[in-house]
Amino acid sequence: MTVTLHVCITCRAGQPVAEGHPVPGQRLHDALTAAVPAGVRIQPVECLSACSNGAAIALTGPDRWTYVYGQMSAEDAPQILEGAAAYAATDDGIVPWRDRVTIFRKRSLARIPPIG
Amino acid sequence: MTVTLHVCITCRAGQPVAEGHPVPGQRLHDALTAAVPAGVRIQPVECLSACSNGAAIALTGPDRWTYVYGQMSAEDAPQILEGAAAYAATDDGIVPWRDRVTIFRKRSLARIPPIG
Repeated sequence: MTVTLHVCITCRAGQPVAEGHPVPGQRLHDALTAAVPAGVRIQPVECLSACSNGAAIALTGPDRWTYVYGQMSAEDAPQILEGAAAYAATDDGIVPWRDRVTIFRKRSLARIPPIG
Repeated sequence: MTVTLHVCITCRAGQPVAEGHPVPGQRLHDALTAAVPAGVRIQPVECLSACSNGAAIALTGPDRWTYVYGQMSAEDAPQILEGAAAYAATDDGIVPWRDRVTIFRKRSLARIPPIG
C-alpha cells in the first residue's frame, strides 16, 4: 500500500520570509524528500487551508483515515517520515496511540474517516 | 454524486456539559439531520481529532477535495447544509470563493486533495 504525504509548500507558518528565501513549507518539503521511506509518496500542494496552523501536512490513502497535522517545521522531518511509515504499515490508517510519534500525538489538526 | 458530511457527535466544543444533556456536537448533528439536501449524506463520527476547534465537520466524496471546518454550532446548521449542497454540486469539491457560505470561508481547519 502506498500512502500520500501532502506537504503545503506555500506555507509561511506565520513568519516573515525574506525575498528569495524558501518559505517554511518549502523547506519542510525539501527536508522530507531527502529520505522517503518505502510505501510513502511525497506530494507538494499549494495550500492546505490550515494557514494559521502551518506548516501543515496531510496523510491520505485509499480506504483509510486521513490525518492532518500542523505546526510542522523542517526539523520535524525525521519524525514525520517515521510516522508516515507507521501509517503506511496499517490497513486502515490508525496507528495505535502508543506507537504514534510524539508530534502526531500533539499537533493533530483533524482526522477524517475513509471515503465510503 | 452523493457527498458525505461527517459530524463529530462527541464534541464538547470546550464547554461544560450537564449530565444527561447532549454535547454540542450531538446537538449540531441533530439540527443537520432535520433537512438534509439532495446529494448529501450526514454521517455521525466519534471524534474528528479537532477537539480544540470543535464542533467539527468534514465534507468528503470520491475524487474530490475534502474540507474540514471548526467552531460550528447547531445555529449554523442551515448555512452548513447550504454549503454542503454547493459542495455536492461541484465536480471536484471546490466551490468558487464568491459562492462559498460565510462560515466556510472563515472557519476552515484544513482542506485535503483528492485521494489519488
